[in-house]
Amino acid sequence: MKLYDFALAPNPRRVRMFLAEKGIEVPTEQINTREAQQFSNEFQKINPRGTVPALVLDNGTAITESVSICRYFEELHPEPSLFGSNAEEKAVIDMWNRRIEIECYGPAADVVRNSLEMFKDRAIAGLPSGVPQLPDLAARGRASYARFMDRLDPKLGKSQFIAGNKFSVADITAFIAMDFAKRGQLEVPADASNILRWQSEIVSRPSASA
Amino acid sequence: MKLYDFALAPNPRRVRMFLAEKGIEVPTEQINTREAQQFSNEFQKINPRGTVPALVLDNGTAITESVSICRYFEELHPEPSLFGSNAEEKAVIDMWNRRIEIECYGPAADVVRNSLEMFKDRAIAGLPSGVPQLPDLAARGRASYARFMDRLDPKLGKSQFIAGNKFSVADITAFIAMDFAKRGQLEVPADASNILRWQSEIVSRPSASA
Repeated sequence: MKLYDFALAPNPRRVRMFLAEKGIEVPTEQINTREAQQFSNEFQKINPRGTVPALVLDNGTAITESVSICRYFEELHPEPSLFGSNAEEKAVIDMWNRRIEIECYGPAADVVRNSLEMFKDRAIAGLPSGVPQLPDLAARGRASYARFMDRLDPKLGKSQFIAGNKFSVADITAFIAMDFAKRGQLEVPADASNILRWQSEIVSRPSASA
Repeated sequence: MKLYDFALAPNPRRVRMFLAEKGIEVPTEQINTREAQQFSNEFQKINPRGTVPALVLDNGTAITESVSICRYFEELHPEPSLFGSNAEEKAVIDMWNRRIEIECYGPAADVVRNSLEMFKDRAIAGLPSGVPQLPDLAARGRASYARFMDRLDPKLGKSQFIAGNKFSVADITAFIAMDFAKRGQLEVPADASNILRWQSEIVSRPSASA
């Protein structure tokens, strides 16, 4: 198998951090999306959607969504469990992973894709051009992000990690989303002491630099 | 346990269709979001995000994301499997379920929430007011939806169902997304014969009317 990766992009980093937590090594190839390599003929044959990461299995099947790639490895290497180990845990972790995507990562992406000069005319990932930025959507994303910070802080006053008292894939998504958000000048509020406590714990894990 | 449901909303319908495929019955209570019941004090205690569906377990845990609720039931009642039964199948079904959400359901929701009079000033689900509609986002959603139809049609010429040759949760998401999309005047193109073939197969399943 081979993992198509890009060191500077947030979604491939989710997979790298997940693999590091599991202690799994996979051969990788860099697809530099800042040089438009995701739109090359060669990579379009692997993933016509023009996004990284993509995991190609030995039988040729391509998995092109970061969370789905993580699930694949969770099945092959169940320990340490990062998606939960019983029905309730699995549902709660999945719920938090989705909430982070919808209420934190999504709004951050709306800000970044709709305001940074480098994404001018390509505000949707995977399309090389023809999608103008929407400043109003960036503003909406900024408000949603702030709202989520206000919700998350008291929650992290009651549990050590995002989905409870066990580290999970939801922590990976949240940690990388908040790091990515900085590119859109979205910061964790200085008075969100619980989020800051959690963030300092996650950043000290070896996987944080994967 | 109890499932908080609303007969006219697409996300609760995903759970109902999933349960019907599994042959599972769960006690339900209707939360009429057209009468703002999701913002009542009583329901806010169950799900402060103000969305349905929500599944409350006997120990009080609330699962408030439709796919996470489906995963919970998949764990308790693995057959018939709707999330896949080995690592590769699980990853491929998860990938397609996500793609449908990101490239089909999401754009449809952008159109509906940002153009229908009933969502004026509340363009984000779960917020009672203060979120103006963005007509440019509705237009972007319309273009994304059309682009996805163009991609999906040849794909459904090569496999019976969305994620391969087995019915899965990705078919449920896609079927309900396309039904919901009609509220925004988004139709399956008349020449998308493979999508139309698939749609006629899904609509004939008893679960389609759940």
